Amino acid sequence: MNLPLGYAYSAVYAGIRQAERDDLALIVTGMDANAAGVFTRNRVQAAPVKLCRRRLALSKGKVGAILINAGNANCATRTGEAVALSTARAAAKLLKLREPEVLVASTGVIGVEMDGGKIAAALPRLVEGLSPARFEDAARAITTTDLVPKTAAAEARLRRGVVRFAGMAKGSGMIHPNMATMLAFVMTDAQIPTAALRTILKRAADASFHRLSVDGDTSTNDTLVLLANGASGVRPDAKELARVEEKITLVMQQLAQSIARDGEGAKKFVTIEVVGASSDGTAARLARAIANSPLVKTAIAGSDPNWGRVLCAAGNAGVPFDPAKADIAMQGVPVCRGGLAAPFSEAELKQKLDAPECQIRLSLRGKGRGQARFWTCDLTHGYIHINASYRT
Amino acid sequence: MNLPLGYAYSAVYAGIRQAERDDLALIVTGMDANAAGVFTRNRVQAAPVKLCRRRLALSKGKVGAILINAGNANCATRTGEAVALSTARAAAKLLKLREPEVLVASTGVIGVEMDGGKIAAALPRLVEGLSPARFEDAARAITTTDLVPKTAAAEARLRRGVVRFAGMAKGSGMIHPNMATMLAFVMTDAQIPTAALRTILKRAADASFHRLSVDGDTSTNDTLVLLANGASGVRPDAKELARVEEKITLVMQQLAQSIARDGEGAKKFVTIEVVGASSDGTAARLARAIANSPLVKTAIAGSDPNWGRVLCAAGNAGVPFDPAKADIAMQGVPVCRGGLAAPFSEAELKQKLDAPECQIRLSLRGKGRGQARFWTCDLTHGYIHINASYRT
Repeated sequence: MNLPLGYAYSAVYAGIRQAERDDLALIVTGMDANAAGVFTRNRVQAAPVKLCRRRLALSKGKVGAILINAGNANCATRTGEAVALSTARAAAKLLKLREPEVLVASTGVIGVEMDGGKIAAALPRLVEGLSPARFEDAARAITTTDLVPKTAAAEARLRRGVVRFAGMAKGSGMIHPNMATMLAFVMTDAQIPTAALRTILKRAADASFHRLSVDGDTSTNDTLVLLANGASGVRPDAKELARVEEKITLVMQQLAQSIARDGEGAKKFVTIEVVGASSDGTAARLARAIANSPLVKTAIAGSDPNWGRVLCAAGNAGVPFDPAKADIAMQGVPVCRGGLAAPFSEAELKQKLDAPECQIRLSLRGKGRGQARFWTCDLTHGYIHINASYRT
Repeated sequence: MNLPLGYAYSAVYAGIRQAERDDLALIVTGMDANAAGVFTRNRVQAAPVKLCRRRLALSKGKVGAILINAGNANCATRTGEAVALSTARAAAKLLKLREPEVLVASTGVIGVEMDGGKIAAALPRLVEGLSPARFEDAARAITTTDLVPKTAAAEARLRRGVVRFAGMAKGSGMIHPNMATMLAFVMTDAQIPTAALRTILKRAADASFHRLSVDGDTSTNDTLVLLANGASGVRPDAKELARVEEKITLVMQQLAQSIARDGEGAKKFVTIEVVGASSDGTAARLARAIANSPLVKTAIAGSDPNWGRVLCAAGNAGVPFDPAKADIAMQGVPVCRGGLAAPFSEAELKQKLDAPECQIRLSLRGKGRGQARFWTCDLTHGYIHINASYRT
């Protein structure tokens, strides 16, 4: 799989986090890219998020580079706005870009002043290291409690040529549908007008990152940016745009699933599927309630086919549904029919639930065709261990 | 402290749960009590909850006895309604009460048929054991994963004499403000008309059980019943009713706090206080969001003064607030002023957070006088351990 043309990446250790591994990454596009962004809905927004929103409006969606650091969220600090601005400005200068075309993103601890000087000092090395081949290095530099870097790629053969797609993401805790706590950057070399890009991003995010839940928390720094630099020279026609959207959605779904797989302490990747609801929105609320239930997630951790907790979690979703019409299957095995226990071999299902991938399916037997799929993970001792000691 | 007059209690082991300890309890009032109830808001409602709602309407709030079992929720089962009805009927017959005056409540696993025969067989022993002195026995019999039985008592000296109050509750997981997952029964020997009782119960529940969160889940069986049998012969006048309400609220608050203290796996009792919000409702939503955040709760488990997580959780409450006006204190130590880090000794505060009681206070510096207090607990390995293996 080839990466999109016209992008270069870099990563260095700037000393923002204590552990000596790369914590500063750069994504650069040789030719101005059209861009669209989606950001956290938390009322508390980090300085880099505010800067991105402002700049995307100011530049009318033109982006030349994104500077990303891990180890400090640059949020709830005195110097937050100044640091975001000055580091972006320094990067613009080195890269010879206009200021509004540089975005910044941060992830890490909240409320600790970030040392912009360290970033400024590391920038020359960072720019020097730029290479189209350092995609994975950049993906690794933006991780925090992640165990693995998260990347995905795709391509589409259109009438006028091939276009390519690639994305990187970080995130493994504080993950919730209203923007998973995460940073994600998706690049394509297709030529896509900004307005179309915005529509595509919104829909693709709804079908990917907004279907993801690790622990129900939403961070102050969530950032998802989609870049289209047109370096392929291929402009999809109206019909082909649908295929482009499909590929972008696919890349984002793979990233979202990687985040659930790497959920803090997670041993299992869990897919929640709801069908037969009155609408997709209702199905999504039911799926989210199940995905967010600590009792469902601990049951999965224990390979316990405790469908009562699934039914109970659905009952808390705040949408009307008739439990007497609810069928539940786990790993494809019917465990509940019409709200009542279905006969199944507990021992066999327990064994099936020991698998690293688990599936819970709630069918409402309704005439409705509303459906939704959510991704989450089990809740284990590891989550507690990581989060009781992350900051200190 | 004396218990309310005119009530008797009993408990036996009926064989509903495997562990051989009492699992069936009975509360009886010698003279018909006025009663009011509050029940789960989950869309999935257990058979006993439905029966209680129906009967309280039918009897116009008259109750003679409450039959409670632990070990099986009698929910999402084929025979649920029949078992609830037949066991209530058998109890009414033995106690010589009219049928609608017997309530039932169940707690335990969902989706497993409950053997009504075991309850019927145990009933004669249960009735035989009735005694005003067996209050604690009944409180112990209704517990499940609880480590301790939960009781509280109070009395008030009114113009015409003394009235007494006592309550028992069970619950330690699946606890959430929209009825904590719990059973609670509160008795008084004051004479209180049913209409007044309903008003008192609603307000007292809002100020107690609805301020409680262990894990954000709400069960299918939550039941809170308030009985007033008038056995003291004292009828509070309009003015004195306010004092009666105070005492009932106090008893319920003590029970609610006991539940948080005994939260599954909890090592610490946590009070969240929000002041200066535009309204009490806004303050409650902020407090609830903080109380429900797994990241805040794991930070407390690790004695980590991670106020950034508190601010972030508040930002997810879905209510407008200005982070720049947010002050946060932990254990009385200011850790955040105006949304920014306040200087404090990390080592000292860490030590203070090792205490079994922790306090988080969010002040919004607003002109608003809205405030709220929530109770929760830390999120520890113990929670995972209990819930990954509870059913099996």
